[in-house]
Amino acid sequence: MVTEVASLLAFPSDLPSGVRRAIVPAGFIAGGIACGIKSSGRPDLAIVAALEGPLAAAAVYTSNRVLAAPVRTTQAHLAATEPAGGGGYGWTRAVISTSGCANAATGTAGEADQLEVAGLMAAAIDARAEEILTMSTGVIGTRLPLERVATGIVGLAGVLGSDETDLVAAAEALRTTDSVAKMSSVTIDLPASDPATTVQVRVTGIAKGVGMIHPQMATMLAVLLTDATVDPATLHGILRAAAAGTWDQLSVDGDTSTNDTVILLASGAAGAAPAAPGSAAAGALAAAVTAVARDLARQQAADGEGATTLITCQVSAACDDADARAVARAVISSSLVKTAIHGRDPNWGRIVAAAGNARLPSAAVLEAAGLSRDEAGAREGSAATVDPDLLRVAIGSHAVFDGPSGGPLVFDRAAVRSAMDRTELLVRLDLGLGAGRGEAFGCDLSEAYVLENSEYTT
Amino acid sequence: MVTEVASLLAFPSDLPSGVRRAIVPAGFIAGGIACGIKSSGRPDLAIVAALEGPLAAAAVYTSNRVLAAPVRTTQAHLAATEPAGGGGYGWTRAVISTSGCANAATGTAGEADQLEVAGLMAAAIDARAEEILTMSTGVIGTRLPLERVATGIVGLAGVLGSDETDLVAAAEALRTTDSVAKMSSVTIDLPASDPATTVQVRVTGIAKGVGMIHPQMATMLAVLLTDATVDPATLHGILRAAAAGTWDQLSVDGDTSTNDTVILLASGAAGAAPAAPGSAAAGALAAAVTAVARDLARQQAADGEGATTLITCQVSAACDDADARAVARAVISSSLVKTAIHGRDPNWGRIVAAAGNARLPSAAVLEAAGLSRDEAGAREGSAATVDPDLLRVAIGSHAVFDGPSGGPLVFDRAAVRSAMDRTELLVRLDLGLGAGRGEAFGCDLSEAYVLENSEYTT
Repeated sequence: MVTEVASLLAFPSDLPSGVRRAIVPAGFIAGGIACGIKSSGRPDLAIVAALEGPLAAAAVYTSNRVLAAPVRTTQAHLAATEPAGGGGYGWTRAVISTSGCANAATGTAGEADQLEVAGLMAAAIDARAEEILTMSTGVIGTRLPLERVATGIVGLAGVLGSDETDLVAAAEALRTTDSVAKMSSVTIDLPASDPATTVQVRVTGIAKGVGMIHPQMATMLAVLLTDATVDPATLHGILRAAAAGTWDQLSVDGDTSTNDTVILLASGAAGAAPAAPGSAAAGALAAAVTAVARDLARQQAADGEGATTLITCQVSAACDDADARAVARAVISSSLVKTAIHGRDPNWGRIVAAAGNARLPSAAVLEAAGLSRDEAGAREGSAATVDPDLLRVAIGSHAVFDGPSGGPLVFDRAAVRSAMDRTELLVRLDLGLGAGRGEAFGCDLSEAYVLENSEYTT
Repeated sequence: MVTEVASLLAFPSDLPSGVRRAIVPAGFIAGGIACGIKSSGRPDLAIVAALEGPLAAAAVYTSNRVLAAPVRTTQAHLAATEPAGGGGYGWTRAVISTSGCANAATGTAGEADQLEVAGLMAAAIDARAEEILTMSTGVIGTRLPLERVATGIVGLAGVLGSDETDLVAAAEALRTTDSVAKMSSVTIDLPASDPATTVQVRVTGIAKGVGMIHPQMATMLAVLLTDATVDPATLHGILRAAAAGTWDQLSVDGDTSTNDTVILLASGAAGAAPAAPGSAAAGALAAAVTAVARDLARQQAADGEGATTLITCQVSAACDDADARAVARAVISSSLVKTAIHGRDPNWGRIVAAAGNARLPSAAVLEAAGLSRDEAGAREGSAATVDPDLLRVAIGSHAVFDGPSGGPLVFDRAAVRSAMDRTELLVRLDLGLGAGRGEAFGCDLSEAYVLENSEYTT
């Protein structure tokens, strides 16, 4: 089982849609309700909490310099519980999410509001304020309606106390412009505390976010839960690596928001042995976390604002994985590729041009994302190596460009158009250079995206 | 006169539309015709040539790794005439542009086609092939129709011989999806060869490009002509600095093409004294070139595919000019800002979020653009400094956000919407940090952009 998930990772297959159920790992309670932040009356308050004791927690955040109050609160609270983690990891009792209001660009008043939310939540479950992590998304520049949130917390804490854990309701309450709630689960077997046996460990994630999404860094809200036993620092390493291959490779519209946060929580309630860094168990857990993150990222791309088609770009034979990821990201981020795919137009020239624009992240970007400068290597910020004379491109199963045999191929335009006219499209590039592989997830750009975003606050 | 233009450059005023005439500098001939590359029958072949003797020439190019054949030909020919320039500057007799076909991703056959075009042009004006520079834009992956181009060159060379210089026709023949031809002129007085007197020197540019436009580098085609006397290396310095503040600050849709080229030519025919590097004359000429480049960049943004509004973002009180330029670029590049402006929605939160995403170019990007690593400074690739508590934002003449006084301002939404409902909009950000200034040019994102680009090749 472990091996199966791990083997997916050099071009993982898509998880079967059957796993898009809310299998709640042991040790967690969760719920969501409408408390009145959204004028629509839709759910807007979500809580994921520990059944007992603290949860190991790791987080990655937006690279935007205008950090929303909920992001700063989460960073400060993680740092308070584990100073060595610098706000990237620590311990927590509960994550509370408010949606419909970003609480961004709201100054010191907004900061105080967010601390008040954490305090109310702490009081409801008899925790300290720094044991509460916060997230929020919605319109920038509006204040949280504190009274409604306070009433909501009391109501939701009552529901949670009744043990009726409802992760679907929490996922519903994360949503803003998402058309559906997003969740994903993987189950793996890990060594138990008694090394002669194994236990079943669950990794389940919920996520929101279909606009203002772009690498880097973790671009949207997500909470991942596992009942594996992991220390916060190891958990952080697992989360960063998973995000680098999934959410950092997701783009809907090129904008990175002020509020993006991904939190990974571990309860240890499955009774597995601690997953030490570098161990097989940590590797298996990392593969499971990555599979869930990838599935959620694909659900987000498919639900991208105005989108009709999920675009997966897989790049192989790059000089290295960093180059492959950069090229895949450039292709799915290109407005011209996105509009061509929307028009079911096999305009491969735009794919080739986008690949030629690919750039590796600069060391500063990687550092902001919590990655070390070493991971950028000597080529930080430079163009990815792409040689059109070696490049091959396929749209769906149709080869459209073959550099080594002279470039443009004659192909059946009607057949390719028809292959493009579906809800998922795979674009593949073989760079003909080395063994590097990488993928990225995006969606087409439609008139509906423009309409939806021309009229959002009004 | 000199001072007037120079004084514009810390937030230059817009050139009066009266200068959008084709004042042809002395020493040049130009023309354009339809030779049959475009199936529409519209003009597609442009030539700008020296009346006699070689022209000093400087060029900047796309940073795309997939370089079109006309770009590689121009680089090779400049390098052949002036090895020290490395393809960035040298000497030329004529620039020939073919439009409707990019001659990109066409392999060695496309390379041979482009050399053939240069050879035909050289034969028509009795020059050597390496004295010909080439540019081309249009659909990627199609071959040039050589016979038609050959016939066109012979026809156009005949017209040129008759001394009927028609720079408007050349500008028309550069166009692909541009709705209008773009040109701009500035006239300055410079010291004559006899230092006791001055002569009038002209700087005139023509440009095309309203899609696949994004920093960096010089993003589209443009030819700038001056009858000043300048050596190629000095000319190159002037062109790079002008492009950095104008075309590198222009974005329509986030894509950088395979063919972008800007060429600056100097004939020396006005009889001015040589403009030595660092001299007042070189400074005045640089200011004039920048004013023309800025005017052309603004015309391109205004004519952006599907655009209804030219957006100019001016940033002041940044830590330095590099930060200010990065923030201005981030604002006009944001899909969410662009759609909000399209919807005449004063959604200042998106402007604040976009500013928070601003990043300086990495050193590798600057090097690719021909700038030195020194110009990147120690902060290469890092986030621009933006503090929401110090930030002020105005849309048109309406203040909408004031960090120092708590953030969001109460404003008359209807009045701001009405101020946004025009063909030009100024967005201003005061970062409250230092003395850095910069601006960038973009346009709104409309359903028409999506429609136009969903249906381009089909």
